[in-house]
Order: sequence, then C-alpha cells, then structure tokens
Amino acid sequence: MKLSDLGEFGLIARIRERFPAPEGVTGIGDDCAILKPRYNSVDTLVSTDMLVEGTHFLLKDIPPYDLGWKSAAVNLSDIAAMGGEPRGTVLSLALPARTEVEWVDEFLRGYGDVSARFNTPLLGGDTTASPDRICINVTVLGEAPYATARKRADAKKGDLVCVTGTLGDSAAGLKAILEKKERDADVQALIAKHYRPVPRVAEGQQLRLNLGVHAMMDISDGIGSDLMHILEASEMNAEVDLSALPLSLALKHVCARFGWDPLELAVCGGEDYELLFTCTSQAEMLLTVPHFVIGRITDRTLAQPQISWRGATASFAGFDHFRRH
Amino acid sequence: MKLSDLGEFGLIARIRERFPAPEGVTGIGDDCAILKPRYNSVDTLVSTDMLVEGTHFLLKDIPPYDLGWKSAAVNLSDIAAMGGEPRGTVLSLALPARTEVEWVDEFLRGYGDVSARFNTPLLGGDTTASPDRICINVTVLGEAPYATARKRADAKKGDLVCVTGTLGDSAAGLKAILEKKERDADVQALIAKHYRPVPRVAEGQQLRLNLGVHAMMDISDGIGSDLMHILEASEMNAEVDLSALPLSLALKHVCARFGWDPLELAVCGGEDYELLFTCTSQAEMLLTVPHFVIGRITDRTLAQPQISWRGATASFAGFDHFRRH
Repeated sequence: MKLSDLGEFGLIARIRERFPAPEGVTGIGDDCAILKPRYNSVDTLVSTDMLVEGTHFLLKDIPPYDLGWKSAAVNLSDIAAMGGEPRGTVLSLALPARTEVEWVDEFLRGYGDVSARFNTPLLGGDTTASPDRICINVTVLGEAPYATARKRADAKKGDLVCVTGTLGDSAAGLKAILEKKERDADVQALIAKHYRPVPRVAEGQQLRLNLGVHAMMDISDGIGSDLMHILEASEMNAEVDLSALPLSLALKHVCARFGWDPLELAVCGGEDYELLFTCTSQAEMLLTVPHFVIGRITDRTLAQPQISWRGATASFAGFDHFRRH
Repeated sequence: MKLSDLGEFGLIARIRERFPAPEGVTGIGDDCAILKPRYNSVDTLVSTDMLVEGTHFLLKDIPPYDLGWKSAAVNLSDIAAMGGEPRGTVLSLALPARTEVEWVDEFLRGYGDVSARFNTPLLGGDTTASPDRICINVTVLGEAPYATARKRADAKKGDLVCVTGTLGDSAAGLKAILEKKERDADVQALIAKHYRPVPRVAEGQQLRLNLGVHAMMDISDGIGSDLMHILEASEMNAEVDLSALPLSLALKHVCARFGWDPLELAVCGGEDYELLFTCTSQAEMLLTVPHFVIGRITDRTLAQPQISWRGATASFAGFDHFRRH
C-alpha cells in the first residue's frame, strides 16, 4: 500500500497506535505536548538532527527499521553526551505519496524500539507530504539536575582522556556497505554498529554523578575531530596513545582481510556514538562505567589546539591531516 | 553568492553571528543546548513543524524574510495556544548547494526578528545539504507553571466561545496571492497577515492567568475545523453566531471588490493564528485581553460533535461541509 492510499490522518492514527500516550506526558493532540520535569531544579537539554534522503541515506541501501533506529539513537546520544536523562522526542516526517506504508511501519518499529528501550516516549511531531524525497527531523528533550550537565569546555590539565567502547567499527561497517563486501559474521557485526548504534545513555548519567568527570561529548565525527572540539573549547592540548585505542576483534579481522588500516578507521571514522570524556586519575580509579584510557590532557602551547599522537608508526605521522575540520 | 561557496561552517558562523548566545542559555556548540526553566514547578511545552519546498511554500512566491518570520511565528503560536511562555527554538535547515546566500540571510533576518520580538533565542539546530529542495524544521520549547497549560479538552458547558482577533484575513491574503490580484493597500494588509502572522504570545499568557478561561488553541485550520477539535476533545457542542465573527475592514473591502464571501473565508480559511478559547461569562467580563465573543458551548447531543451556525443566510446552511477534516 502506498502512503497516498493511507492519507495523513491514517498515518497519524498509525503512529498513535504504535506510540501510546506515555505516563506523565499529556497534551498529545493539543498544540504542544506537556512534559513534567523529573527534578525540581532542572536544566532542560535539547538537540535536533535532520536527515535528508540522498544526503544522509539512500532509500535502496538502509533498511527502514535501521533508519528509524538510528534517527532516534543518534539524538539520544546527544543527551547522553552531556550526562543527561533523555525524556522524549518529537519527530517530523516529510514523505512522498509514493512511499510504501510498509516502509513507514518498519521505520516506526525501529524508532519505537529505541524509544521503548530508553524510555523516551514520542512526545509529538509533524507529518507532511514531500514532493519527492523523505526528510526526517528528530528533536530530543532531556534533563539534568541544575548545572550538572557536562560540557566540552570542562577539560582540565592532567585529566585522563577516556572512551566508553571500541572505535572504528561503524566506519568499517559503512566502508563494507559502500564497497559491497560479502557479509560474513564480522562484517555483519560492523554493519550493525553502523546502522544500529546504541547510545550510552546509562553510562552518561553514571559519569555525570562523578564530580571528577570533567568534559564529555559523544563520538560522531571520529576522535581525531571530536577530541579537537574538547581541546578548542577547553583551551588545552592532548596526548593520545594510538596503541591504547580500543579496537574490536571484528574490526581487526576485517581490516586484516581487506588490508584496511584499523587505526585510521578508529581515529578518523565517525558515528561510533561512544562517549569521549576527561577525568582526574583519582576519579578514573573509581569509575564503574566500562571505559578505556587513551590519553591525557596537557597545557596549550600554541594558539591552536594540538593532539600529539603517541605510539604511532611512521605511517601515522600525519594524522592531523585526516581531521575533517 | 551560492551556499556551495560559503560551505556548512561558513553558514553556521553566519547563523551564530546573527543569533548570539543568549543569557541563561549555555551549551551552544555542545551536543545539546541547556535551558534553565524560569519556574520551580514547571511544565515543559514542546511543538514541532516541518516545511518542505513545493509542499508548503514555493521559492518563487514567498519572500525569504517572510518565510523565516512565518517559520518561527507559527511555532510560537503553538506555545501561545496553551498559555505558555515560549523560551526558545531549535532550527534545522536542509539547503541545496545552489541556494543563494542572500536568500539564507533574508530567511534568518525574518526568523531573527520574530525571535527577538518574543525573546525566544535560537537554542541550537542542524544545517545540512539537500539534493534539491529546501526543508525547514522548527521545534519550539516553552514553559508554564505546573498544570496550568490550557488544553483543548477543557471546555465546559455554558462557556462562551471567544477569539482574540479578526478571522479570514490570512486566507484572503493567500487567495489574493494565488489569483495574482493587484496589491493595493487592502490586499497588501491581508497578504501581510498571511506571510507575517503575529503569534498571540502575551495574550495567551494573560488568558492562562484567568482561572475562568478553560479550553484554548490557536486557529490554524479555520474556526470551523479548529473549534471542532475543542468539541471533540471536550465532548461538547457549540453554537456560533456568524454575525459575531470579527471581520477586518480590509477583508470586507477586498471581498466586496472581488465578490468573495467573507464568512466563508472567516470560517474555513486557516492560518489566522488568533487564539480560540472558551471561558465562563463571569471570567469574560474581567478579561483585559482584546477578544470577541462568537458563540457558546452546549451539551453534546449525538456521538459526533456539532456546531450550530446561527445568523446564517441560506447560503451557509451547509457550512459543515467546508470543514477540512
């Protein structure tokens, strides 16, 4: 069935059926949704992301379930990145009349599975016709107790630089998709990391509770680029030990087979959605969140921030050139 | 200059220049923006709207300043519709590389003028390339003291039905644009109502302070359709006196000249963005917000809600057929 047969009101009814009005949220069907904050002295966190067919995804490539999953997950990751508690999302969907209703159903199923897993109800949204391409916009709302959300500018000299999981898997998954590699178990695992990232929501909140955890963000562009954002905002430098970067077995296997460079993928590949944070070494000893120490924050020496890559073989001397910005 | 010459970072720099980080809002440049609520016991209000080139607007028709204005204004109107205080917006922009930077500047100027007028800073956003069409998404955040936001379901039997301003102007303006009418002062005034609606933000908050004001919403589809939403949610009927509908002089002049039916435009035309509310007659006597009483809430008699149109000539007998939904 095409969307044009279902109509906008049919679509809205379908969405409502899948996303029943959650406890503590009212006003769906009103001009706004109403959300009661969980804390008395709260900061509201907000982030938004737009995905356009042809720019961010190709309809023929990404399964709609995965697109729905990823649309929700990467937004929740932005709340996790500051140690916040995601409370809900609003979803705008512009869909051409030719869109298959099954496609929409699968998209909503993926979106709904992330929403259910992280207890972030759909608070509202907008559905509209599009002349030709699908356009998706997600806005996520979250909360943190007043003045506790972690920012990029919070890194201090001597902090350890840590990440919550392996790097490069998502980039390798994307490369495997683009190069149409055969999908054995390892390749599948990497592609799953690319299509269905799991935002570090609980980890972000746990890290927020530790006062020795300073700067925090999520890894969307690759640590080479993302760590630079922390250094810019905090006016610091960093040393990173390339041999300490956590690499998955699947990544190592696949890189060995195809002759890819795992370190390049780990440093320059994006969309890992792991958390990148800095903390005192005392705080690090007490952390219960799984993490890997990969480097240290050092004093700024020049006007521009710098990352010194240690443990690099000759081929990594020019790592800075890989930075996207 | 084309957007492709400016680049995404140039565009972001341009937006930041125009929208400096507002007081009380931090985290722009972080993964989320952080907003401190103004009240201790607060409800957060959220609404979102997507506009797609070719569906909602034609590039060659709407001036970019007006598109920017309207994108922000109609979202603020959703907060006003519940009596909330809008606190800020997030804006996603998908733009083709061929877009003129002057177009973007004018769009941002219109968006910025509404944002400044209603003290609703740009909290964050997303900019991205689009293969061909412009797509705009605005999410607005607002607040109201706990459990005071007005909903559609709040209408009570015997309430008066009121609107905050004249009806039909925006629809007449759109009709004049579509029919390429000559733009004398009256037509200009109606087109301005269509392109640059002024959300009733202060009025909505004043109405919220009056406990005798019950259901409230903004008029986006025309009162015929919007009042029906209140009746459905409140399980009520209504009588509306057509002779009481407030009509502007410009509307009357233009309708007389072109042989248009002002009542049809007032009832079925949308996008007035006036507030439609119900209140007790005692409350109405004390209202300081300019308003017009147009009818009364009555008991539900059948399963479906009904509006009885009074003061109708024969030509209005079938008004219900004009309802959009």
